[in-house]
Amino acid sequence: MTDNRCLHTLPIRIYYEDTDAGGVVYYANYLRFFERARTECLRSLGHEQQQMAAQTGCLFVVRQASLNYRAPARLDDELLIVSSLQRIGRATVTFEQRCERNGSLLVEGSIEIACVDKDTFRPRPLPAALKQDLESSQSSLS
Amino acid sequence: MTDNRCLHTLPIRIYYEDTDAGGVVYYANYLRFFERARTECLRSLGHEQQQMAAQTGCLFVVRQASLNYRAPARLDDELLIVSSLQRIGRATVTFEQRCERNGSLLVEGSIEIACVDKDTFRPRPLPAALKQDLESSQSSLS
Amino acid sequence: MTDNRCLHTLPIRIYYEDTDAGGVVYYANYLRFFERARTECLRSLGHEQQQMAAQTGCLFVVRQASLNYRAPARLDDELLIVSSLQRIGRATVTFEQRCERNGSLLVEGSIEIACVDKDTFRPRPLPAALKQDLESSQSSLS
Amino acid sequence: MTDNRCLHTLPIRIYYEDTDAGGVVYYANYLRFFERARTECLRSLGHEQQQMAAQTGCLFVVRQASLNYRAPARLDDELLIVSSLQRIGRATVTFEQRCERNGSLLVEGSIEIACVDKDTFRPRPLPAALKQDLESSQSSLS
Repeated sequence: MTDNRCLHTLPIRIYYEDTDAGGVVYYANYLRFFERARTECLRSLGHEQQQMAAQTGCLFVVRQASLNYRAPARLDDELLIVSSLQRIGRATVTFEQRCERNGSLLVEGSIEIACVDKDTFRPRPLPAALKQDLESSQSSLS
Repeated sequence: MTDNRCLHTLPIRIYYEDTDAGGVVYYANYLRFFERARTECLRSLGHEQQQMAAQTGCLFVVRQASLNYRAPARLDDELLIVSSLQRIGRATVTFEQRCERNGSLLVEGSIEIACVDKDTFRPRPLPAALKQDLESSQSSLS
Repeated sequence: MTDNRCLHTLPIRIYYEDTDAGGVVYYANYLRFFERARTECLRSLGHEQQQMAAQTGCLFVVRQASLNYRAPARLDDELLIVSSLQRIGRATVTFEQRCERNGSLLVEGSIEIACVDKDTFRPRPLPAALKQDLESSQSSLS
Repeated sequence: MTDNRCLHTLPIRIYYEDTDAGGVVYYANYLRFFERARTECLRSLGHEQQQMAAQTGCLFVVRQASLNYRAPARLDDELLIVSSLQRIGRATVTFEQRCERNGSLLVEGSIEIACVDKDTFRPRPLPAALKQDLESSQSSLS
């Protein structure tokens, strides 16, 4: 049940910078919105990325992204990004993310992020504290 | 007195999308932040740009922008954009805008926007209702 | 055989604007590069999007995008975007696109674009001339 | 005489990513184009920024930017960025930059960049080799 795994919601306002000459939000920008939402989701669990890099030498990179565009968003729209955890692996986390306007779905995606060494970009296990907090956030929802 | 003319403040969080490989916020992005702030400032006075274009056939374009960069912002920073009206003309409005972090100035700028016909981009007087609301917002502060 | 369907290549230089504080190209920007490449691919067949909108009332929107990120690109890199047609439908075209650096694969994706009415955003068949030119470009490669 | 100091020209093609819902190029993006042009200008003199950071510990930041917007650019436009050196200081370089379409001026600006330590962001004198190459490029034009 999707609702059970809902982890985080972030409101996003659409400005001129987000739109293109077609009069709608430029398709790449939903990836920006989705990353803002993942960042706030981690922050709400107490994990800041800058701090994580400094303390653990890790940063997150996106491994895989897939997006379905159902309907366009426009200037001045107030959108909601709904993010839920789909899978927590040893070195990766997969998010399901949706962009909604007044409850109707505009864009949905699945984004797999991987933990890597900030200098070499080689895979690293998720920091233990983060992994634990992600797992707790899930079980508290089930 | 600058404080008297303070019209609007907008908090901005810095995400990866805003930064560059120098580790700081990319210089063009302050213009994005400043426009978000101008848009919210107008919205707080009851004027939405999409609506204004539909009702009056006008849109705003930037005529002149000048920016001084004092200190860099970084990932995860929480900034404040402070916007005040500098001058209201027949067809133009000039904003003074500052970007601050914990009360210290990072970037300051002056931005002149002009009202134009949305199809021809020829100058148009400011819509009367907007002009009046801008002027009232100023006098109520003095 | 992938090489047979190679339709178009576009060189891309990486500037500060494309990178983020992780020191690499920001993940959403590959969608910008891929769109530049699709636009140049269509232009090389004689089809400009602005003109197409004016003449046929159609524009293209992205329906589905899926991306695999294999290795990061960095400041000053010179990349190559290789685009090939995967499928030409009645109202949609699917591109396979790769981003390479010195022949090694960094990012690969599949992008489905759909033809829509520029005002209503409802699906429209591909303009006949464009469809024919896309089909000819494919058969001439087989 | 402006023509005498012309240092570098860079063609720029306008894609959807560059435009906004007003149907024109978003105002902040000219700063992206101007930076691409400065980067290519330095590269043409043999100086890559990534390499400069690695070898001298310096990077460039923008100190001051001022822009005049005369006329809008649109989707599919082919623009030319014309960059000339206005002033070479001890730790700063000022560029005059123009954006033209078919010889007519759209946007003009003056951009002062400063050399800083890549870790502390404190001012540093221009690397000697770069300063010499910039000065030679100017005198060869007079």
